[in-house]
Amino acid sequence: MAPELCAQLGAVQFTAAGQRRRLEAVALEEPLELRLEQPAGALTLAVLMRTPGHDRELLTGWLVSEGLLPAAFSLWPGQNPNVWHLSTPEHARLAHGARLAVSSSACGVCGTGSIERLAVRAGRPRWTGEALLPELVSVLPERLQAAQTGFAATGGLHGAGLFSAAGERLCAFEDVGRHNSVDKVVGWAVSRLPLTNHLLCVSSRAGFEIVQKAVMAGVAVVVTVGAASTLAIDTAQTFGVTLCAFTRQGRFTVYSAPERIGE
Amino acid sequence: MAPELCAQLGAVQFTAAGQRRRLEAVALEEPLELRLEQPAGALTLAVLMRTPGHDRELLTGWLVSEGLLPAAFSLWPGQNPNVWHLSTPEHARLAHGARLAVSSSACGVCGTGSIERLAVRAGRPRWTGEALLPELVSVLPERLQAAQTGFAATGGLHGAGLFSAAGERLCAFEDVGRHNSVDKVVGWAVSRLPLTNHLLCVSSRAGFEIVQKAVMAGVAVVVTVGAASTLAIDTAQTFGVTLCAFTRQGRFTVYSAPERIGE
Repeated sequence: MAPELCAQLGAVQFTAAGQRRRLEAVALEEPLELRLEQPAGALTLAVLMRTPGHDRELLTGWLVSEGLLPAAFSLWPGQNPNVWHLSTPEHARLAHGARLAVSSSACGVCGTGSIERLAVRAGRPRWTGEALLPELVSVLPERLQAAQTGFAATGGLHGAGLFSAAGERLCAFEDVGRHNSVDKVVGWAVSRLPLTNHLLCVSSRAGFEIVQKAVMAGVAVVVTVGAASTLAIDTAQTFGVTLCAFTRQGRFTVYSAPERIGE
Repeated sequence: MAPELCAQLGAVQFTAAGQRRRLEAVALEEPLELRLEQPAGALTLAVLMRTPGHDRELLTGWLVSEGLLPAAFSLWPGQNPNVWHLSTPEHARLAHGARLAVSSSACGVCGTGSIERLAVRAGRPRWTGEALLPELVSVLPERLQAAQTGFAATGGLHGAGLFSAAGERLCAFEDVGRHNSVDKVVGWAVSRLPLTNHLLCVSSRAGFEIVQKAVMAGVAVVVTVGAASTLAIDTAQTFGVTLCAFTRQGRFTVYSAPERIGE
C-alpha cells in the first residue's frame, strides 16, 4: 500500500449474485500547476493532471522533456500544494519556450482544466430512460471488443463505442490515444443524434478527461474496462454521470449515480 | 484486421529459445494538425497525436470537448492528410477560445510535436556499455512491478523505473499518467547521475511521448510491458534508441537497435 497514491472510496459492486457496497482503493488524480515567477508577473507554464507525490521530480522531469531545464533555479510548493513556483535567471527563455510550445499545439488531455472550469461550460447530462439492467452494462465491453479489430491485430489501440439504452452498439472507434477514441465517438454522434439516454463504453481506464468529454457531449453513463481515478469519480459525481469501472467477467463497480442501474 | 489502423513492421523477438525476426502489426500513430482559416491568416488550433482514420469525427469531437464547436463550419483535409482546415463565421470566437485553452495550460503529452522538432533539440542517447543479456531485459517489468504498490492497490496507476546496465532498480514512480511517471524518473535522475548506460522500464504501452522523453533525457534503452506505436518506433529508430515492447512471460520484441541486446 502506498497511501499517498490512492484514496478509499465507497462504491457499489454488481455481480451475478447481486450488488454490495464496498470500499475501493482509487488512484489519486489532481491538477498540478507550475508558475514561472518573473518581474512581469507570474506565468503559468503547465497544468499537468497527475497523481500527487514526487511533484518536484515530476516538474523537473517535465522541464527536461520540454527542453526548458534552467542551469540554476528554485522550485517550491505554494500554500496550495497543487501549485508550484519556479524562479530562475533564465525566466525570459522559459517564458519564450513555453509560449512556443503552447502556441504550436493544444491538447485533448489536459487543455481544459478542472471541474470548476467544466461547470462553466456544461450542465448535467440528462437521462430520461428507465434504469439499466446490470446484465446489459456488463456485456458492453465484449460488444465493443467485437469491433476492436485494430486492437486484436496490434494490442496497441484503445477503443470507444456508443451504445443505445438497449445495449445496441451504434459506433466504435480505435486510437492510440484513449481520449482520441472518445472524441471520434462524440464527433460521429454530434450531427446524427442527441446523446441523451446513450452509453459510452471505453476499453481503457477512466481518467478525468474521459468523464470530461462525456459531460461536454451530454452522455450520462460511462462504462470502462479499467480503473477510474479520483478526479474522474469526483467529476462524475458533480455532474451526475453514472461511472461503471472494472467492467469485466460479469461484474463492474459503480462509483457515481448507481441509482441508474436497476436490479 | 483493420489495415488503416496498423502497419506491418519488422522486429526481433527474443524468447528463452533464442531470437527470430518476424513481422509485427503495429498501431499507427501520427500527428494531426487542425488549422483555423481566418482573414488574419491560419492559426493552429491543435496538434493531436492520433491513429489516422476518422479524422473528421476526431476533430469534430475535439471541438465539442473543448467547447468550441461552431454552429456552421467547413472542415476539409489538406494535401497533407495530417493537416486539416477549418473555416467558420465564428473564427474570432474559436481563435479566442483556443488561445485561452493553451494559455492556461501546456501538455506533457503532445506539447512538443514531431520527430523533426525533437531532432533540433536533442541528439542520439549514448550507450557505451556492453550488450545487454536478454534475460536481464525480460526481468525488468517484474522488478518494476515489485515497486508498484499503488497499482497493486488500485489497478489504476502506471509505473516507470530506472535501471542500471546490471539490472539494478535505481528508482520507480507511479502516476495515473504514463508520461508523468516517466517525467518523475527523469526528474529524479537529472541531478543525481548521467543517464548514459541506463534503462527506462515502463508498465504501459510506448507511444511517441515515452520515447521522446527518453531521447530528451539521454536514455538509450526503453523497455515496455505493452505495445509500441509506429511513431514511437520511428522515433526510436531515428535516435538509435533500443525499444523493447511486449516484455512479459520471459519474452520481448525489439523494434529498434536490437544490436544492443546480446546472445
